[in-house]
Amino acid sequence: MERTLAAELPEQAGREVRVAGWLHRTRHLANVSFLIVRDATGMAQIVTTDHGHTGIPEETVIEVTGRATANEKAPGGVEITEPRLRLLSEPAGTLPFDMFRPSLRAGLPAQLDRAPLALRHPARRRVFELAAASVAGFRSVLDRRRFVEVSTPKIVGSATESGANVFGIDYFGQRAFLAQSPQFYKQMLVGVFERVYEVGPVFRAEPHDTTRHLAEYTSLDAEFGFITDHTSVMAVLRDVVAGMLESARERVGGHLPVVPAQIPTLHFAEALEMVSAATGVDVTGEPDLAPAHERFLGEWARREHGSEFVFVTGYPMAKRPFYTHPDPARPAYSNSFDLLFRGIELVTGGQRLHRESDYRAALRKLGEDAAPYEPYLQAFHFGMPPHGGFAIGLERWTARLTGAANIRAATLFPRDLHRLTP
Amino acid sequence: MERTLAAELPEQAGREVRVAGWLHRTRHLANVSFLIVRDATGMAQIVTTDHGHTGIPEETVIEVTGRATANEKAPGGVEITEPRLRLLSEPAGTLPFDMFRPSLRAGLPAQLDRAPLALRHPARRRVFELAAASVAGFRSVLDRRRFVEVSTPKIVGSATESGANVFGIDYFGQRAFLAQSPQFYKQMLVGVFERVYEVGPVFRAEPHDTTRHLAEYTSLDAEFGFITDHTSVMAVLRDVVAGMLESARERVGGHLPVVPAQIPTLHFAEALEMVSAATGVDVTGEPDLAPAHERFLGEWARREHGSEFVFVTGYPMAKRPFYTHPDPARPAYSNSFDLLFRGIELVTGGQRLHRESDYRAALRKLGEDAAPYEPYLQAFHFGMPPHGGFAIGLERWTARLTGAANIRAATLFPRDLHRLTP
Repeated sequence: MERTLAAELPEQAGREVRVAGWLHRTRHLANVSFLIVRDATGMAQIVTTDHGHTGIPEETVIEVTGRATANEKAPGGVEITEPRLRLLSEPAGTLPFDMFRPSLRAGLPAQLDRAPLALRHPARRRVFELAAASVAGFRSVLDRRRFVEVSTPKIVGSATESGANVFGIDYFGQRAFLAQSPQFYKQMLVGVFERVYEVGPVFRAEPHDTTRHLAEYTSLDAEFGFITDHTSVMAVLRDVVAGMLESARERVGGHLPVVPAQIPTLHFAEALEMVSAATGVDVTGEPDLAPAHERFLGEWARREHGSEFVFVTGYPMAKRPFYTHPDPARPAYSNSFDLLFRGIELVTGGQRLHRESDYRAALRKLGEDAAPYEPYLQAFHFGMPPHGGFAIGLERWTARLTGAANIRAATLFPRDLHRLTP
Repeated sequence: MERTLAAELPEQAGREVRVAGWLHRTRHLANVSFLIVRDATGMAQIVTTDHGHTGIPEETVIEVTGRATANEKAPGGVEITEPRLRLLSEPAGTLPFDMFRPSLRAGLPAQLDRAPLALRHPARRRVFELAAASVAGFRSVLDRRRFVEVSTPKIVGSATESGANVFGIDYFGQRAFLAQSPQFYKQMLVGVFERVYEVGPVFRAEPHDTTRHLAEYTSLDAEFGFITDHTSVMAVLRDVVAGMLESARERVGGHLPVVPAQIPTLHFAEALEMVSAATGVDVTGEPDLAPAHERFLGEWARREHGSEFVFVTGYPMAKRPFYTHPDPARPAYSNSFDLLFRGIELVTGGQRLHRESDYRAALRKLGEDAAPYEPYLQAFHFGMPPHGGFAIGLERWTARLTGAANIRAATLFPRDLHRLTP
């Protein structure tokens, strides 16, 4: 007999069925016991009077054959009666915390220590179903625009973003590093495919123990050529974010934000002026936005434009990586942007330099030796179009969508200063 | 004016157009010059009598506006006349090899040293378009079967597949490793989602300098629960491989193999008997298939079944990893398989152990301490269904499909004993 999934059970009323899953909960009344079986799609209620069925530990994997019987009090309006049970696993060990409650009561560290168990909880599982659906939406929008998916090396010969926060590897006796981003590779590949994206791990040796940093996370990177400037990138990003949310809504559901057709946009200088005017404190000389400024801009976008998203453009060149393209009209400002969601930075992107001479000048200005960058500079030596891109941190995205206070709650098996297992 | 892609040019005959791309080739005749512009979709021919247009180096990025004019001798039947040119990049540097020939004449090492340039060649680019299309097919088949995509850590606390060939990392002063496979994580996540897949990098410190090994490659991993045995896994794999080829055919085209509805299948013992009978040399006691045996089986499948694919099942337990499930009827053999394509192993998979006690017995038998495995064994302690899965090496897949003699020809930026850049 074919397995019936919990979600399909209501359609099977009156028939013999076979369900299988984890024993989620057992409840005993005077003459009858209820077993709740959890599978990937939901819960199935089993009614039994057989005392042989009542000693099975929760989380044991069982298979139940029986009759699907209408009962308006059962989940989905159908329960399984006259059950025959078979254990598919050994009896599960004693659980360190209850799995049957609406949410896990264990603290986050205890959950992370027991991740193979804790992640089974439907509320925990849903976070990662949202992540998977978001990634599918990211790809789908870019595939339709003829972006090509690429896989670039995570073992690299020199640091990509800066010398700091990089993990070293012993590579056959040579010194190598874990890639902090696919930035250089995705740019080189714009020279090949014009438009590329990559979903993959990036590594940051973050020595800070915060709720926002991980040593390894999943980066959703896109990069494309033949742009006018950073506004071309912002237009694609707007559609990507909308597509990610649409996919999440279709596949997982729940209350998710709406992306306006035009995301409100402020220049960095304009943003600081607004903050100064509102607070009475002159911050117009600041080189970056403080978290409080970002929250203010988030509130402004919601109040004035009914938008949970706001773009800030033109961050000072001094605060952006060396490959950032300046604003030709005001070279102290950059053709870059941040996308804020509910007042917190969600995505960073912009136009990149595309002329070899500009790269050499930028490195010279930083006092950096060009030698480690030569493999990368080849791309520009052999002709590159104006291009730009962006990167979305998947765990940060999912944490924001689910309101998680700690990014680790949106990471299957987080890696940080203190955590290397499971 | 909107940019017209080379592939769209034929539809624009008679209109003013703007194309942009890399100057692929320049040919001068007595009174006229032809410039070929290459973009991600094809080639556009420009006809000019302006001598100012003839000094632009190949690979410079240019934008051309002009009239799309029918000419049956031009590629696609249309060329651009009365062109105005604008350089989008600086003039490209001198090329180390010709890019305009039907295939690159430089040797593979020279191509890899100059990857940002060499990969632009249409024949090289196509290999990776095939890879991207194959991955899209992999995901599409599994998405339809409610598999959930996951991202698992690449920095791990202990070696996954075996102690050998593992890269060490300095992890905040602790010893850590790069994951050799997502095997343990995908199994733990079967306990969460029932069905999972991951496309991501895996790392092997291969000290061998061969045409088949890389230090980093992309693994297409799937794992799922509630199976009968390895044959459930083989059935899904058959459909995955068919879906990968269908996607590659649709998106890229070309001559690609066909997967039969039923892939011919031989048991390991049966395969060795066949080889012995055919060669007159008794190999029935061998613990593994030699490359010559695999080629023989590939020829057999093609001759007897018209299939380029053949499954070999039941490899001896001694040659499979400790998490492999034995054949209950013949415990010296395993519930595992290899999928051979044109006589070479392409995919490995099988049923895994799912009982905690079986894991502990298997580790004891190997003389291995269970302690480093405890985070992984948790999953089995708390109840796991019968499950299995497979892994496809993407670069190997693409190399086989394109007939590449060296796996590096199917890798954007290969990593090996000698190569760490670009």
